[in-house]
Amino acid sequence: MSQYPQSIRNAINQLVRLPGIGQRTAERLAMHLLRATEKEVTNLARSLVDLKKQTVLCSRCFTLSDGPLCRICRDPSRTQSVLCVVEGPAEMMAIEKSGAYTGLYHVLHGVLSPMDGIGPDDIRINELIKRIEQETITEIVLATSTQVEGEATAAYLFERLKPYNVTTTRIASGMPVGGDLKYTDPVTLKNAMEKRHAI
Amino acid sequence: MSQYPQSIRNAINQLVRLPGIGQRTAERLAMHLLRATEKEVTNLARSLVDLKKQTVLCSRCFTLSDGPLCRICRDPSRTQSVLCVVEGPAEMMAIEKSGAYTGLYHVLHGVLSPMDGIGPDDIRINELIKRIEQETITEIVLATSTQVEGEATAAYLFERLKPYNVTTTRIASGMPVGGDLKYTDPVTLKNAMEKRHAI
Repeated sequence: MSQYPQSIRNAINQLVRLPGIGQRTAERLAMHLLRATEKEVTNLARSLVDLKKQTVLCSRCFTLSDGPLCRICRDPSRTQSVLCVVEGPAEMMAIEKSGAYTGLYHVLHGVLSPMDGIGPDDIRINELIKRIEQETITEIVLATSTQVEGEATAAYLFERLKPYNVTTTRIASGMPVGGDLKYTDPVTLKNAMEKRHAI
Repeated sequence: MSQYPQSIRNAINQLVRLPGIGQRTAERLAMHLLRATEKEVTNLARSLVDLKKQTVLCSRCFTLSDGPLCRICRDPSRTQSVLCVVEGPAEMMAIEKSGAYTGLYHVLHGVLSPMDGIGPDDIRINELIKRIEQETITEIVLATSTQVEGEATAAYLFERLKPYNVTTTRIASGMPVGGDLKYTDPVTLKNAMEKRHAI
């Protein structure tokens, strides 16, 4: 490492700060960029700065957006009366990729996690309540994860939403589609068994 | 992918061009950068541009350097009469890390590869000859790889250097230190067997 010139050491030190990038990967990326054209490197660098500068949160659903309202909130063809509550923008993108949902979203930016000191006021629950009061919402789909914190957050929201005239639903949990029973973890299997239903 | 705002799509498109960075890793990196501070992102971007702008080749040994002469060529404590010929800067760094070598280097920037149309004039062999003629060199260590092209390049250089009054040596090949015979590939084992020597 100390054998590299300063300019390369700097770049490597910056790259290893990224998640999943270790020393060797950072060295390989730096070597790649040294072989790339100056224009290519400038384009990469500018796109990263622009990413940070131009991306804001949608003022309505709080997902990532490049304008005050995100693409989905601007889209009049989306069902305006259904809100899907997700933990973060990545989870929202995953649901969008599935193509199974045509309503709007509400991004919490986190889950309740008392161990980490994250309570209801630390994620965008008050903003959700305000939307329910102001918009004409008939259904709230709780699409937080099926991990402990996600389930706890869904349970909390279910209680919190009781006073309002909305139907609260939860995404189904069970065996993943195409899942092989013998490779499925016991917790998923137990849950799938307990939630078995008549066909 | 198309669900992301333009600024995020741009960054992801730039990141996936890097070696070893797939779509999912690029998305994860973009999400990480969105959470990072603007200063952190700017520092990363600047380090990449500087990497390209400030890194040049050493005018003597052709390794990567941030000045006209690299750190090793500038170092008077290095043995000036021994040159180690390597394929690239990364190979030179690897030898430096081993701490087993105190001479100077010569970086070829490639290996002979007729299949890819790379001949003696495409890598820095003429520059090596010029150094032998101009500097006072007593030994040339051929440290190209033990792969086919590396061996061929070493064989070519050995012939090419015969007219000059220098000792030409080749790094040893055999079992890696700590290698387990039952997990060693047959080619390495065959080579180690053929190169066996009295103890």
